[in-house]
Amino acid sequence: VALVVSGSPGVIASVFTTNALTAAPVQWSQSLAAQAPWRRQARAILYNSGNANACTGPAGMQATRRCVQGVAAALDIAPQAVWVASTGIIGVPLPTAGLCAAIPKLACDLRRGVQAARAAACAIMTTDTCHKMAHATVDIGGQRYILGGMAKGAGMIHPNMATLLACITCDAPLQHAQAQRLLRGAVTRSFNTLSVDHDTSTNDCAFFFCNGAAGGQVPPHSAAEAALAAGLEKLCIQLAEAIAQDGEGATCLIRCTVHGARSAVQAALIARSIVASPLVKCAVTGQDPNWGRIVAAAGAAGVALQLHHLELDIENVAILRAGTPVQAPATARRARAAMSKNPLHLRLRVGKGPGQAVARGCNLTHAYVTLNAEYPT
Amino acid sequence: VALVVSGSPGVIASVFTTNALTAAPVQWSQSLAAQAPWRRQARAILYNSGNANACTGPAGMQATRRCVQGVAAALDIAPQAVWVASTGIIGVPLPTAGLCAAIPKLACDLRRGVQAARAAACAIMTTDTCHKMAHATVDIGGQRYILGGMAKGAGMIHPNMATLLACITCDAPLQHAQAQRLLRGAVTRSFNTLSVDHDTSTNDCAFFFCNGAAGGQVPPHSAAEAALAAGLEKLCIQLAEAIAQDGEGATCLIRCTVHGARSAVQAALIARSIVASPLVKCAVTGQDPNWGRIVAAAGAAGVALQLHHLELDIENVAILRAGTPVQAPATARRARAAMSKNPLHLRLRVGKGPGQAVARGCNLTHAYVTLNAEYPT
Repeated sequence: VALVVSGSPGVIASVFTTNALTAAPVQWSQSLAAQAPWRRQARAILYNSGNANACTGPAGMQATRRCVQGVAAALDIAPQAVWVASTGIIGVPLPTAGLCAAIPKLACDLRRGVQAARAAACAIMTTDTCHKMAHATVDIGGQRYILGGMAKGAGMIHPNMATLLACITCDAPLQHAQAQRLLRGAVTRSFNTLSVDHDTSTNDCAFFFCNGAAGGQVPPHSAAEAALAAGLEKLCIQLAEAIAQDGEGATCLIRCTVHGARSAVQAALIARSIVASPLVKCAVTGQDPNWGRIVAAAGAAGVALQLHHLELDIENVAILRAGTPVQAPATARRARAAMSKNPLHLRLRVGKGPGQAVARGCNLTHAYVTLNAEYPT
Repeated sequence: VALVVSGSPGVIASVFTTNALTAAPVQWSQSLAAQAPWRRQARAILYNSGNANACTGPAGMQATRRCVQGVAAALDIAPQAVWVASTGIIGVPLPTAGLCAAIPKLACDLRRGVQAARAAACAIMTTDTCHKMAHATVDIGGQRYILGGMAKGAGMIHPNMATLLACITCDAPLQHAQAQRLLRGAVTRSFNTLSVDHDTSTNDCAFFFCNGAAGGQVPPHSAAEAALAAGLEKLCIQLAEAIAQDGEGATCLIRCTVHGARSAVQAALIARSIVASPLVKCAVTGQDPNWGRIVAAAGAAGVALQLHHLELDIENVAILRAGTPVQAPATARRARAAMSKNPLHLRLRVGKGPGQAVARGCNLTHAYVTLNAEYPT
C-alpha cells in the first residue's frame, strides 16, 4: 500500500484504461474526474498492489469506498479528495480489513524525499522485477519546478493483468485543463506507445497530481507550459521504457521509430504493429535480423504502404533501401550483430510524409510462457 | 508445387489478406479478380510453398508472370485464366527456373480423386505438421454437388508468415457474384474467426473455384444456394479448426462462443479478443481456469460490457453467473479438469442481445517461442 498526499489541494489529471470492465478503483477515480469541483481539491492517492479489485461487483465498489473513507478520516479531508488505484489479482474480494488498518499508520508516517518515493514505487510493484522511478526539473525564468514519477507494469504471477499504474507529482501551479492536456500528450507519446502483450488491463491509470506548491505562474499555452510539457513527456518516456525493459520474461527493450508517414497517428499505428508482433518479438529473442517479419508487421497496421518506399535500419545497419535488401557484403553479419543490442532500435521510413512516431515493446521469451502458464491461480 | 485445374472454364471467388504489402501472387490474382470477364474463365490455380514471393519488388511480379505463362503454355489456356498463390519465406527471389521446369510435368500428370487432392494438400504445407483437407456433398433435389477443400497455415520455421492459403473446389454451376457472396459469408464465420498469433500475412488468400461440371441449376437466393452455402461454411470451419489445432507449437484448439451481444459483429470482436489474448492462451497451456483473464480480454474488445450481465462456462462447468463466481464446492476442481479438454470450449454470455459468434485459436507454448526464435533466417 502506498499513499501519495499533497499538503495543499491540487488538481489531478487522469488517463484511464479503455477496457470496458473497469475495476472499482478506476470507477471511483473516474467519478472524481467527471466532477469538476473535486478535480481541483485533490489531496491524496491511495495505491494498493496484490489485488486489483476488478470484476468484484458491487462489493468491490463498497470496498473501495471503505478505503477512501479510511484515508479521508486519517487525513481529515473529504472522501472526494481521495483518488485510488489498485493492481493485482482479478475477481478476488479486496481484503479491506488489513488495508483499512494500515491507512492510519501510513497517514502518520508521511515523508518527503527520494527514500519515501522509492518506498512508494516499491509498494505498487506486483511481479515487476524492479521498481520504476523518474524525475525531472524544469527551470523557467528563475523558477524551478520538480516532477517526480513512479510506475509499475508488465508483471504477473497470479492471474493479474499486466496492469500499468503511473503517478507523476508536480509542484507547478497548473489548472486542471492544462494538466489534463499535458498528461494526455505525454501519455500518447509514452505509455500509449507501449506493448508488452496484446492485453489491456481492467486497472490501468496514469495520474498527474499538481499542487502548485512551488508558486509562480504557468499561463496556458506559454513557453513555461511548453517546458513543463517537455519535462513531463521525457519523464513518462523514461517510465514507459523501464516498463518495457521489465516486460514479463523480457530480456530486450525494442524501440521502433517510423518516419515519413502521412501523419503521426499513422506512424504510431505502424510502429506499434511492429513492436507488438509476436513474430518480430521472437526474432529479437533469436537475434535474427528477420526483416521480412518487420515489413510484414508494418503492412498489417491498417495503413496504406508501398514496398518501394520502405527503408529499414536495424541499429546502424541499413537493411532495406527502396524496398530492396541492401546487398553490401557485410550486411548479414553486421545485422546479426546489431540484433544483440539492448535496447534494440529499429528504424523504418515509409515515405516522404511528415508523420513520425516511436513505439516501445520487448521480446517474447520462454520465460513469458513460463510465468503465465505455469503458475496456477 | 500444386496445380489445381478445371477441365472447363469456371468462376473463382476470392478473399485476400488485408496486409498493405501484398505478395506478387496476391497482386496477380487480385488483378484477375478485378477483371470481370476473366473471373468467368478461370481454368487453373498454381500453388507453391517454400517461397512467398513477398517483398520481392518488380522482380517478384516478373517471376509470378513467368510461372503463369508456364502454366498457360502447358495447358494451352490464356494467362488470365491462371490464378496463383505462394507461401513461404519472405523477401527472397522466387526460384522460377525450378518452378517453370516442374510445371509441364504437373500439367501432364493431372489426376482426380482423393489421392491427388491429398498430394496437393501436402504440397502447399510449409511448417504445418499435417495436411488439411475437408469435403462436403450437398444433395439438392436429386442433384449432388461436391465440395473439396484444402488449406495450409499457422506454421513457420524460416521467416515465413503464418500464411493461410485455402482452396475450395465445387462442381455446382454458380455465377461469380453468387460464389463470391457464399465465400465471403463462409470465410467470415471460419477463417476470419481464427487467430494463431496477431500477425497478418502478406500472402493469405482463399479461393472458391466453381466450374458447374455437375450441371443442374442453383438460382441466386434459392434453397439450393442456401444448402450449398451451408456445406461451404461447414467445410471452411473444418479447415479453420484444423489450422488452429495445428497452430505453431499449439497443443490445444480453443473455441470460444459469445452469446447475447448486440450484434454478431460485436460478438465476434469479443470472441476474437478472448482467443487472441496471450494471457488466456498461456492459461490454457497451464490448464488454469483463470476466468479473470477471459473476462479482462472480453472487456478489451472495444465493445461496451456490463460485468453483472456476464455468464461464463468453461466446457460444461458454470464459472460466472451475473458477473459473480459460482460458489459451488466442486467448481474449482471441475473447472481445472475441464481446462485439460482439447478442443477447449469457452462460452461467454454478455447480455440478452441476438448477437452470437464463434472464434477459434490455440494455446501459447514454449514450442511457439522455440519455433520462431531459435531457427535463424
